[in-house]
Amino acid sequence: MEDIVSLCKRRGFVIQSSELYGGYGGFYDYGHLGVEVKRNIKDHWWRTFVQSRDDVVGLDSSIIANPKIWESSGHVGGFSDPMVDCKETKLRFRADQVFWSPVVVDGNIVTYVSVHEDSPESMKKEGKKMAKKLLKEMDMKGADYDDFSFKDLTEATEEEMSKIPSPATGTPTLTMPRDFNLMFETSVGAQTDSASKGYLRPETAQGIFVNFKNVQGPARMKVPFGIAQIGKAFRNEITPRNFIFRSREFEQMEIEYFIQPGEGWADSHKAWLSDSKDFLLSLGLRPSLLGWDVHEGDGLAHYANACTDVTFRFPFGVSELMGIAARGDYDLQAHTAGSGKSLEYFDESTKEKYVPHVIEPSLGVDRVFLAIMCSAYAEDEVGGEKRNFLKFHPRVAPVKAAVLPLVKNKEELVGVARELYDKLKMRWNVDFDTGGAIGRRYRRQDEVGTPFCITVDFDTIEKEGKEVTVRFRDTTEQIKMCIDDVPAFLSKEVDGF
Amino acid sequence: MEDIVSLCKRRGFVIQSSELYGGYGGFYDYGHLGVEVKRNIKDHWWRTFVQSRDDVVGLDSSIIANPKIWESSGHVGGFSDPMVDCKETKLRFRADQVFWSPVVVDGNIVTYVSVHEDSPESMKKEGKKMAKKLLKEMDMKGADYDDFSFKDLTEATEEEMSKIPSPATGTPTLTMPRDFNLMFETSVGAQTDSASKGYLRPETAQGIFVNFKNVQGPARMKVPFGIAQIGKAFRNEITPRNFIFRSREFEQMEIEYFIQPGEGWADSHKAWLSDSKDFLLSLGLRPSLLGWDVHEGDGLAHYANACTDVTFRFPFGVSELMGIAARGDYDLQAHTAGSGKSLEYFDESTKEKYVPHVIEPSLGVDRVFLAIMCSAYAEDEVGGEKRNFLKFHPRVAPVKAAVLPLVKNKEELVGVARELYDKLKMRWNVDFDTGGAIGRRYRRQDEVGTPFCITVDFDTIEKEGKEVTVRFRDTTEQIKMCIDDVPAFLSKEVDGF
Repeated sequence: MEDIVSLCKRRGFVIQSSELYGGYGGFYDYGHLGVEVKRNIKDHWWRTFVQSRDDVVGLDSSIIANPKIWESSGHVGGFSDPMVDCKETKLRFRADQVFWSPVVVDGNIVTYVSVHEDSPESMKKEGKKMAKKLLKEMDMKGADYDDFSFKDLTEATEEEMSKIPSPATGTPTLTMPRDFNLMFETSVGAQTDSASKGYLRPETAQGIFVNFKNVQGPARMKVPFGIAQIGKAFRNEITPRNFIFRSREFEQMEIEYFIQPGEGWADSHKAWLSDSKDFLLSLGLRPSLLGWDVHEGDGLAHYANACTDVTFRFPFGVSELMGIAARGDYDLQAHTAGSGKSLEYFDESTKEKYVPHVIEPSLGVDRVFLAIMCSAYAEDEVGGEKRNFLKFHPRVAPVKAAVLPLVKNKEELVGVARELYDKLKMRWNVDFDTGGAIGRRYRRQDEVGTPFCITVDFDTIEKEGKEVTVRFRDTTEQIKMCIDDVPAFLSKEVDGF
Repeated sequence: MEDIVSLCKRRGFVIQSSELYGGYGGFYDYGHLGVEVKRNIKDHWWRTFVQSRDDVVGLDSSIIANPKIWESSGHVGGFSDPMVDCKETKLRFRADQVFWSPVVVDGNIVTYVSVHEDSPESMKKEGKKMAKKLLKEMDMKGADYDDFSFKDLTEATEEEMSKIPSPATGTPTLTMPRDFNLMFETSVGAQTDSASKGYLRPETAQGIFVNFKNVQGPARMKVPFGIAQIGKAFRNEITPRNFIFRSREFEQMEIEYFIQPGEGWADSHKAWLSDSKDFLLSLGLRPSLLGWDVHEGDGLAHYANACTDVTFRFPFGVSELMGIAARGDYDLQAHTAGSGKSLEYFDESTKEKYVPHVIEPSLGVDRVFLAIMCSAYAEDEVGGEKRNFLKFHPRVAPVKAAVLPLVKNKEELVGVARELYDKLKMRWNVDFDTGGAIGRRYRRQDEVGTPFCITVDFDTIEKEGKEVTVRFRDTTEQIKMCIDDVPAFLSKEVDGF
């Protein structure tokens, strides 16, 4: 993971936000190559699910919207984590991420330890350190105590909480756990009272639900149909972690696919699972790293019929990449109740009125970005030397091709190369590099994942075939083709037509 | 203007945010056609200024960032409007938008009137109403008073303020004007004290400045070069108005073009003026509605060498569409001072170290969107009937073409049309419409600005030439072409290659 984070920064893919000012936890910037990869992901998603489908149209709703939306959706009341505050340091911890244990000597609880950790090994290690210190303070230095039995703070009684030390101070300065809403709050407009409270959306989906009628009518859509949206969302994560996997500002690609109520949802859900998997594979994600996680029983929200996560084996573990949920009519009903306005659909074919149910395929751009980086990260040996390269699918690669004049002191040759470059860059992000030996230039392109290097040499300008050499990044194989055929070649490889 | 707002909603271009909940002032959603136009604007900008130029690369920085950025940039201290609060209603007004006048009877000031208006006519009208009411309350009903002499509240003394009535209550309940920061505030992270205060960016530009080194190095850029960014920005406007022209959430397309210090800035500024104008025209903006506004003297920020606005004649008046400023090294120096880190550039050709100066072309996506709608809005007569249509340039049109089978009950004909449609929609957003008479279908496409209607008829399936009819929206002219030539035709018209 550290290799990927470091490569991301060094090559201009992802940079810590506000690095000049020492950073800012949970926020990231995308550099000159990262922004291109991100654009490619979003464009390909839009092309796949909106442009090339008859049954899905797009939407772009605002990040800040009427707070009543978040009351109706349940986010104001329920979108929260249990938190404890340290009264002394004002630090705040997720109650389910602080672990505590009684320290038992000769069958009696003599004190408590606490650690803010998630790996069992470091939990034990940190616990031992704290126990040693506390026992010393109690004049019980070196006392023999039982093995720890760790639980998290949501499982502590009020009396236990009054004795459990804060991980920040080592003394019992924690409050009882209480719910902390993950939505960022702000104040909107001219008034100064509490009526001005607004929220940054924690998901893009609600913007779709509240616009169901505003899209369905003007777009003349008939159920089943979907509304798709790409946009930023924000969650005030208390412990953002794993690089761009769990950040406070992120981008989502969500679809609400509206269907007729009834048994049909299972087939629709299955179709979306399949389409979603195809999409992820078409981005070049390694199939061996993808998995499925079907939520059942307790893992399922009370209103959902089914939810399947697509998982990815990240370097820090297997985690959710995307979710495909069958949410019934929960959301549209919630907004009907909240707004007092009907969100019913009139089905002309059956002459029935109903509130549609939805299938919701929801995907995080930043998570897919990270999965792509993990899938692409590769090393091999070329000519006896170790090579680090990025095995991007051509459609997500930030630079599609590099045009390389073999030598830089032959005007005609450079001119012909430049002409090809100018032609290609009308359509794709391509590079032009004259600096250094050709092998070194190949290597530089490999490192940023450019799939094709196109070398213009003396054959190109002197022979009738006007041949250039096209080198493939992954295999380092080289083929010859007429310079005039390059645009069609790239179009096929990059765009697929 | 009302026609445009109504059309925007009816056809799925722009909808008031949170309409289901009665709206939310200053926020807008883009519907199924609006989102496509917006994408087209942004993509064309990126293609023009990033992809097809050697000297500009992209960036995507976070909306929320370290608040120190906004301290250094001067936004925490200075990005504000003078405001007054009404102590009774808690309403807040921009001091420069509330106008007041003494009411003078027989040479004596007997009371004051105030109006929250900006047109001189309604100012006078509202003032008269208030004067009448106040004079009646003072038992001076019908008294003859001098003409009003309106000033705004920033020009009132403390004593005058204590007598000027609030536009909300009609009695003197206003505070003295004070500065109100336009940045939306929020609270970030685990701590609960004031150190957690964060801001939503009021412009994308600062994200570029603080990443100057993070982009220049990895992208191996040499001055002069630019960094471009598209993204959301937020300003807590007290009186958002003129539809999407001045909203609280908007999207910007900004470039910081870094140049060598010295006299060269004037040429670079001129070149960016020219490139910017070319870009705006390439979106199909009506040349007769565009103008220039050169800021001089007082209108110029103290650190700027020059600033030229491109203006547009909107239905509500001539207003700024984009700004092209020569900002010197003000911003990089401010961040050097704020962070204590050098933002110098080492020029290998001259062996000099310097802090680059910048030219900043800055454009609002939503304003361009509105200018495009205003430019496209047209009516004429076709066959003796009034026709309303949208004259979009093909590159910004939400739907590029509609494929129309002449009849819908001839399977082969519909099949051939459908095949063409499937082929085209891999590359463009196209429509397929079988419903109703062909003339009605043409009219429906005209209304949403589809530049080309492609009709598949019996000639297409029965004759050797496989000809379809292509109808041009603006002229209603029709030409015949072989169905196989349609993709190349659209490519030329829409993409320009």
